[in-house]
Amino acid sequence: MATLHSGIAASPGIAIAKAFRFAAAEHDTPANTKAADAEAEASRFREAVRAAQGEIEQIRQLTEKRLGPQKAEIFESHLMLLEDPDLVDAVLDKIAGEQANAEYALYEVTAEVVEMLREMDSEMLRERAADVKDVSGRVMSHLRGKPYAGLSGLTEEAIVIAEDLTPSDTAQLDLGYVRGFVTEIGSRTSHSAIMARSLELPAVVGAGSGLADVETGTVVILDATEGKLIVDPSERELETYREKKAAYEERKAKLKLLASLPSVTADGERLELAANIGSVEDLAKVLENGADGIGLFRTEFLYMGRSSIPTEEEQYQIYKHVLEKLGGKRVVIRTMDIGGDKELPYLELPKESNPFLGLRALRLSLKREDLFRTQLRALLRASTAGKLNIMFPMIAVMSELLEAKRILAEERAKLEAEGIPVSDSIEVGIMIEIPAAALNADYLAREADFFSIGTNDLIQYTMAADRMNESVSYLYQPYHPSILRLVRMVIQAAHKAGKWAGMCGEMAGDLTAIPLLLGMGLDEFSMSAGSVLQARELVGELSKQQWAGLAEEALALGTQEEVKKLVHAALNKD
Amino acid sequence: MATLHSGIAASPGIAIAKAFRFAAAEHDTPANTKAADAEAEASRFREAVRAAQGEIEQIRQLTEKRLGPQKAEIFESHLMLLEDPDLVDAVLDKIAGEQANAEYALYEVTAEVVEMLREMDSEMLRERAADVKDVSGRVMSHLRGKPYAGLSGLTEEAIVIAEDLTPSDTAQLDLGYVRGFVTEIGSRTSHSAIMARSLELPAVVGAGSGLADVETGTVVILDATEGKLIVDPSERELETYREKKAAYEERKAKLKLLASLPSVTADGERLELAANIGSVEDLAKVLENGADGIGLFRTEFLYMGRSSIPTEEEQYQIYKHVLEKLGGKRVVIRTMDIGGDKELPYLELPKESNPFLGLRALRLSLKREDLFRTQLRALLRASTAGKLNIMFPMIAVMSELLEAKRILAEERAKLEAEGIPVSDSIEVGIMIEIPAAALNADYLAREADFFSIGTNDLIQYTMAADRMNESVSYLYQPYHPSILRLVRMVIQAAHKAGKWAGMCGEMAGDLTAIPLLLGMGLDEFSMSAGSVLQARELVGELSKQQWAGLAEEALALGTQEEVKKLVHAALNKD
Repeated sequence: MATLHSGIAASPGIAIAKAFRFAAAEHDTPANTKAADAEAEASRFREAVRAAQGEIEQIRQLTEKRLGPQKAEIFESHLMLLEDPDLVDAVLDKIAGEQANAEYALYEVTAEVVEMLREMDSEMLRERAADVKDVSGRVMSHLRGKPYAGLSGLTEEAIVIAEDLTPSDTAQLDLGYVRGFVTEIGSRTSHSAIMARSLELPAVVGAGSGLADVETGTVVILDATEGKLIVDPSERELETYREKKAAYEERKAKLKLLASLPSVTADGERLELAANIGSVEDLAKVLENGADGIGLFRTEFLYMGRSSIPTEEEQYQIYKHVLEKLGGKRVVIRTMDIGGDKELPYLELPKESNPFLGLRALRLSLKREDLFRTQLRALLRASTAGKLNIMFPMIAVMSELLEAKRILAEERAKLEAEGIPVSDSIEVGIMIEIPAAALNADYLAREADFFSIGTNDLIQYTMAADRMNESVSYLYQPYHPSILRLVRMVIQAAHKAGKWAGMCGEMAGDLTAIPLLLGMGLDEFSMSAGSVLQARELVGELSKQQWAGLAEEALALGTQEEVKKLVHAALNKD
Repeated sequence: MATLHSGIAASPGIAIAKAFRFAAAEHDTPANTKAADAEAEASRFREAVRAAQGEIEQIRQLTEKRLGPQKAEIFESHLMLLEDPDLVDAVLDKIAGEQANAEYALYEVTAEVVEMLREMDSEMLRERAADVKDVSGRVMSHLRGKPYAGLSGLTEEAIVIAEDLTPSDTAQLDLGYVRGFVTEIGSRTSHSAIMARSLELPAVVGAGSGLADVETGTVVILDATEGKLIVDPSERELETYREKKAAYEERKAKLKLLASLPSVTADGERLELAANIGSVEDLAKVLENGADGIGLFRTEFLYMGRSSIPTEEEQYQIYKHVLEKLGGKRVVIRTMDIGGDKELPYLELPKESNPFLGLRALRLSLKREDLFRTQLRALLRASTAGKLNIMFPMIAVMSELLEAKRILAEERAKLEAEGIPVSDSIEVGIMIEIPAAALNADYLAREADFFSIGTNDLIQYTMAADRMNESVSYLYQPYHPSILRLVRMVIQAAHKAGKWAGMCGEMAGDLTAIPLLLGMGLDEFSMSAGSVLQARELVGELSKQQWAGLAEEALALGTQEEVKKLVHAALNKD
């Protein structure tokens, strides 16, 4: 009889195939036998490290080819781990000092490092523990003479079932055969989930330990859109899911047809449906899905996963590349939003009790003018390559905007004095993600060329609820009238001043929110590239005029539930 | 020539007297000589502990008499320290195990414990280090046969100058002679500062190490209103400050006359100027200053500084006492605001990344119904003793208010079934301290009998700036038009529903804010008891009608600076 496992929908899609049970190389605890010849033991260890380095370098190159240099960075950090004295020298010390055998020494040191990392307060450092285990397991395989096979043994189509997939496991998935994967642990933001989305591979994570019973060769249905795995399905279930799979693929194909069409409502209003990106690697999807522009380039990712600040030249090359690729379509580049939950070890920022309410984003830029000026120069130099909009994050009051604009003007003047050309048509706008800014939007509109509403933070602050904290997640209510009222204030303030208003939070791509936002007059919607086509399809079916009336009704309601009911009723009526 | 030291104004007032340099007993590092007879050494230590216990008990009783039982609690915790195995047994172990002499053993253990506490992440635990040093120093004095003299040697009026004052030093200040004190270290919230305010003793803290040069017998002027100490002043300075002191005292006396008068504006509008309290001990000041009621009783302090949850009976006695003392004037009691920066070790709450945006106040009450129901029962039972208003903190959305009211109704029904009388005229209202609640106030007014705007948190969330974080303190802008607009929304929503609106944040007692709040129609202003009389004086000079117009003007401005300018210009014109 069929059994059902539920997990987190990490990457959408439907697949039907035989299960392939993948067990990461399981290493028994090595015995603590003394090594007769410590010198020989040390060179055995060094050889195993070199062999692992060779393999990781291959994986790195494969990933760079498949997914681009940024996704491959994880493996550079793996290579760096194999040069880290905390790991490698500690093992050699243990071999020399205690005459431990190499396996035992590696086992002990790895356990210590992993334990230490797991106790860290930082999510980033805790995730690092998985990397250490990945790398150390690979070295162990070589020590034991059983080189790490990974998933290379597949010879037919399969859905991979595993306790967890390491970054290197995921990078090596053979796309010729693998149709999807399911893991027992993991979250939507774990490495394997992120990679699955990049690979457009259906994936469910965090499905629980019950998966251990699924045997290789059993037929399974993976419905990664709903977060389900059906093991040993009935003929009827197979039939149903074959149809669902066909419908899913047909719809995907149909949506693709919209990629080259403009974003227009049923009553002929033209909108801008743009995409959010975090790196150059996201560009392919932006173009593929025919986004009308880039509404948010999150530049902080350029600063992360590395050990020093990116130079002006590095940044310039990246900004220029993005602008050129968009060929004249609008590109909104946000200056760095560092701080909050995004820590950069090399900046040595002070620890804060409430980082989301602390020195982050533009607040930090104004304190660390050196970083800020470097970024602004890179932006200004790139401005002639396309249609650049510069956006400042986390503005609460006018004085911050004026200060940021003053510094920008200074850098422009310096570049011009150096004879470096700068575009004359750069728009300079701000994120509206702090309630004070929304309430003060009429005044801020005097100095901002455009607004882009950042709903993730705006909701967090308006509700006083950390969006990463499960205990208060019930307060993440994007359709609550309080939020809608702030959104409307911002749009009205922009229009009154002859400016445009956009949105670049999750809400901008939400199919329940889009009709209301359209009705309130939002000009630009920026979302993940994968959502653009379904948003274009939806707005094509909506009348802006009709939704203007419905939005007014929604604004007068008292709760999110009432707003949802109103929207869903109206959408079904259409 | 006179020299000037500046510090933090911890408790207002002006004093002129000779300096008395107070040095806490300085103990040299004891030598690590082995004790011949470990048994004898252990009993010498035990005797010293007993002697210290006797002294601390005396101080505790003195403090209870002078300042009430809550202020005396600190000394109960000192007595508990002397029964703490981490301290006492650790010293005895060191004596027995290492044949250390008692002084050395005490010195070493104290240093370890202090070091450990100082590294703690919790402000509360770090402050605990001062307590350990205080207690340990007292035991050390007895070991060395020089019992701790404290400040008992004064024979004439003096201003005490010290590096720091321990809680026990401050409690023992001889108010017959001590006219004020100045310390090198400390903050507005350190124990000595809090005690100075309770004693109405002028005090400046954190004046820096330069104080070390001030010699006993030098004439000094302490201007604790401005946070200044003038050492060896000129005759002219003395003259100026004698006048200032006289003027300060005259004004204080004049204000006292207002204590028995009603709060009425120049154009005859009656207002309610109420006081905030945190404990029964604050009642004396409320009555002395003739507050029109209690606008905020912060009950979380009942839960703090102790090792278990207060029982229903304990709470009932306290609420009843407060209601009785206010003799029919309104008393707004807020249910516990635990969480955020207020940690309770015995509740074992999970650690949060952004506690101000986490599970605190009513959110916690709804998760920990056991605590909440106990508090509600105590409140309902006390309700017949006076005019009780119950207020729920940190409401963001209607569902929270409905849930809290449902639980309250259940407890009322249970009590009535038990035959326990409950008042029929309890008003049930909410704090408005989350932007969402202000924006949704028109809807919340259907279920809330009143609103009280908590500006400290409201500003923090509206500006997305932790009010305890110095890096973003420039964003604490109570007069910013964004804040004023939210305040007006709340007042208008209340009035439209026939309800009243008050305010219980710092802003309610702020002399620049009061005219604007009056103009916007605020009905009740709740502030620290010490501010009530000057507020009453001010409103007596203001016309509500005139300020209604000025408030409209302020709401249309763009920045806090513009608002301040408008208010100050209008006040000077009067």
